[in-house]
Amino acid sequence: MSNWSSVDIEMMSRAIKLAEKGRFTTRPNPCVGCVIVRDDHIIGEGYHQRAGQGHAEVNALKMLYDKSQTAQGATAYVTLEPCSHYGRTPPCALGLINAKVARVVVAVTDANPEVSGRGIAMLREAGIQVDVGLLTDQAYALNLGFMKRMKTGLPWVTVKVAASLDGKTALSNGVSKWITGTAARADVQKYRASHCALITGVETVLVDDPSLHVRFESLGELTTRHTPDEIFQPLRVVLDSRARLTANQQLFSIESPILLVSGCDYPAHIKATLPAHVSFLVLECDSSGRIPLLPLLTYLGRTANSVLVEAGATLAGAFVSQGLADDIVLYQAPKLLGSHGRNMLQLPDYTAMDQPPELQLIDERHVGQDKRYILRYNKSY
Amino acid sequence: MSNWSSVDIEMMSRAIKLAEKGRFTTRPNPCVGCVIVRDDHIIGEGYHQRAGQGHAEVNALKMLYDKSQTAQGATAYVTLEPCSHYGRTPPCALGLINAKVARVVVAVTDANPEVSGRGIAMLREAGIQVDVGLLTDQAYALNLGFMKRMKTGLPWVTVKVAASLDGKTALSNGVSKWITGTAARADVQKYRASHCALITGVETVLVDDPSLHVRFESLGELTTRHTPDEIFQPLRVVLDSRARLTANQQLFSIESPILLVSGCDYPAHIKATLPAHVSFLVLECDSSGRIPLLPLLTYLGRTANSVLVEAGATLAGAFVSQGLADDIVLYQAPKLLGSHGRNMLQLPDYTAMDQPPELQLIDERHVGQDKRYILRYNKSY
Repeated sequence: MSNWSSVDIEMMSRAIKLAEKGRFTTRPNPCVGCVIVRDDHIIGEGYHQRAGQGHAEVNALKMLYDKSQTAQGATAYVTLEPCSHYGRTPPCALGLINAKVARVVVAVTDANPEVSGRGIAMLREAGIQVDVGLLTDQAYALNLGFMKRMKTGLPWVTVKVAASLDGKTALSNGVSKWITGTAARADVQKYRASHCALITGVETVLVDDPSLHVRFESLGELTTRHTPDEIFQPLRVVLDSRARLTANQQLFSIESPILLVSGCDYPAHIKATLPAHVSFLVLECDSSGRIPLLPLLTYLGRTANSVLVEAGATLAGAFVSQGLADDIVLYQAPKLLGSHGRNMLQLPDYTAMDQPPELQLIDERHVGQDKRYILRYNKSY
Repeated sequence: MSNWSSVDIEMMSRAIKLAEKGRFTTRPNPCVGCVIVRDDHIIGEGYHQRAGQGHAEVNALKMLYDKSQTAQGATAYVTLEPCSHYGRTPPCALGLINAKVARVVVAVTDANPEVSGRGIAMLREAGIQVDVGLLTDQAYALNLGFMKRMKTGLPWVTVKVAASLDGKTALSNGVSKWITGTAARADVQKYRASHCALITGVETVLVDDPSLHVRFESLGELTTRHTPDEIFQPLRVVLDSRARLTANQQLFSIESPILLVSGCDYPAHIKATLPAHVSFLVLECDSSGRIPLLPLLTYLGRTANSVLVEAGATLAGAFVSQGLADDIVLYQAPKLLGSHGRNMLQLPDYTAMDQPPELQLIDERHVGQDKRYILRYNKSY
């Protein structure tokens, strides 16, 4: 369908806006919004808030049932195809059928190729008019990570870099505090809060001793919309090929999950000192002694929609040069650090201008005194 | 004076706008605008167009005389203190006195410390009310190069760099065509056209073989405001410490002035083959065999208000690290060239974050697909 009415567009926009409210809380589930409309007026609306709790359609129906209204003959706008399977909740398609809606407008079909279209088919079999494809791009963008994971098994990979105008992340001696300002560093906290996992390298942990958790008080306006317990702590993943870490790092003092990925087992006496929130993954290292990234992402993709790489130039560059990065988020400070500074991404020695990765500038904005660029690799999932 | 009326501000703004029209044509003279006002209405206005031609005040008075009007009792707004000396034209202060204006408003006093204030004194002695300091910053910004040269004897130095988001100006093999897009490269042409001299290094000339002239047809909207002969070709200055250049470069085929700066004389047989528009300057090289930059700028400052450095990382970085640069104009393309690429500015190996040069971001805008930043060193002249 392509001739959408202005009411259709308005209502799906509202559903997308609702879905966005779940951005920090639904994972690993997708963000979904639903608006139920009769005679051009919203009679019920809802969004998915948290995995295990009501889906968007259920919440929207509940709103109108709470007001003793009926959805009979109404139109439901959903940002994602209603589910057709019995999970922790009954299928939403069935909910809409039982509610006797006359029409369902769907922005995006289910990402999982095994079930995609089934919810729509179930609705149509029940005699409901289903129109698909309204504001698809905007609705898809709500769940890039979920969509990629459903289609490929891999999480969406965002590489975060903070650098000077001349592309340096630190002076030659490693001094990097601070290149970007407080606003940019607070913005990074929001990025962390919206990702399922963070990946860093053991060198970063040993040298900078970061805690790598989300500091609720740094989340700005999010603190007015969410309580601290609604905000997820991402899984902190440390690549430590030679199992060198001990329990001394700040990282361990914060009680949220850590995954140590190594090429060999940690010594038993070290393991014994590590806290209970630490788990382990052993992956055979590649010929250069490094953790192989695709198997790592495949492992993380079992549960994580998205990972944020906050690492040095070697590891960050490896994600980019191996074609595994989806986005680069670059915080750029209006400073020059000079030619001796550390480069932001270790990439191959290109010999022609068509060899560096093709990037698309998706977004660009000021964050305090700094700029934030989002660069996307031209891939579609 | 600080309580300027809205008419004062409006009229001086107009004078500044007029002065700007001379930006590409007045050098080595400053850009100056003049508006003559009676009963809140402009009765005459003018600006300085070209060295040797009428000053702004003369042009403004001419306009009202041409209409058989008188300036008697009027107010004259001038962006720069009227001159008090007999040069190629009689002093403008005298012109305003003879025109019997009642009041003169001056944005900026003369930059030359030897004559600064004399024009104002001359006017006041003639009984004219003179108010100084309206829109000073804006008027000063019209003539940064002229002002600096008058006060220090040195030209304003702008270092131009075109780089990727990761601060690289070329791949490791030197390939750099093209990092920035056509719009950015056309913008560089305007920069060239507004500068008195360009400085580059012999390596750039030998490797890239640039012509380093202003291509009129690339000047965009300027081509509608100026004729080709109104646009200056900047003096092309090549630093060639060991006098290696021969007549083979494209540079020489374009008939506009070239200055070859070397640490020793060119061989007579080479000199004989170089065209007549080439002149020479020999400066004693420093201990590392390089042309010393301060003596070079002192020499150029005899005639040049402004120089644009379009050079490799070593020479461009030398201007910056020696504290001789005033502005860096950075064209930044939304690309990554990778860690092996060439750095944009060779600077010292800093060990603390307070050592890199302090820059102020003066301007930032899109130029086609690229960004243009103007970064200014915190110096005042």
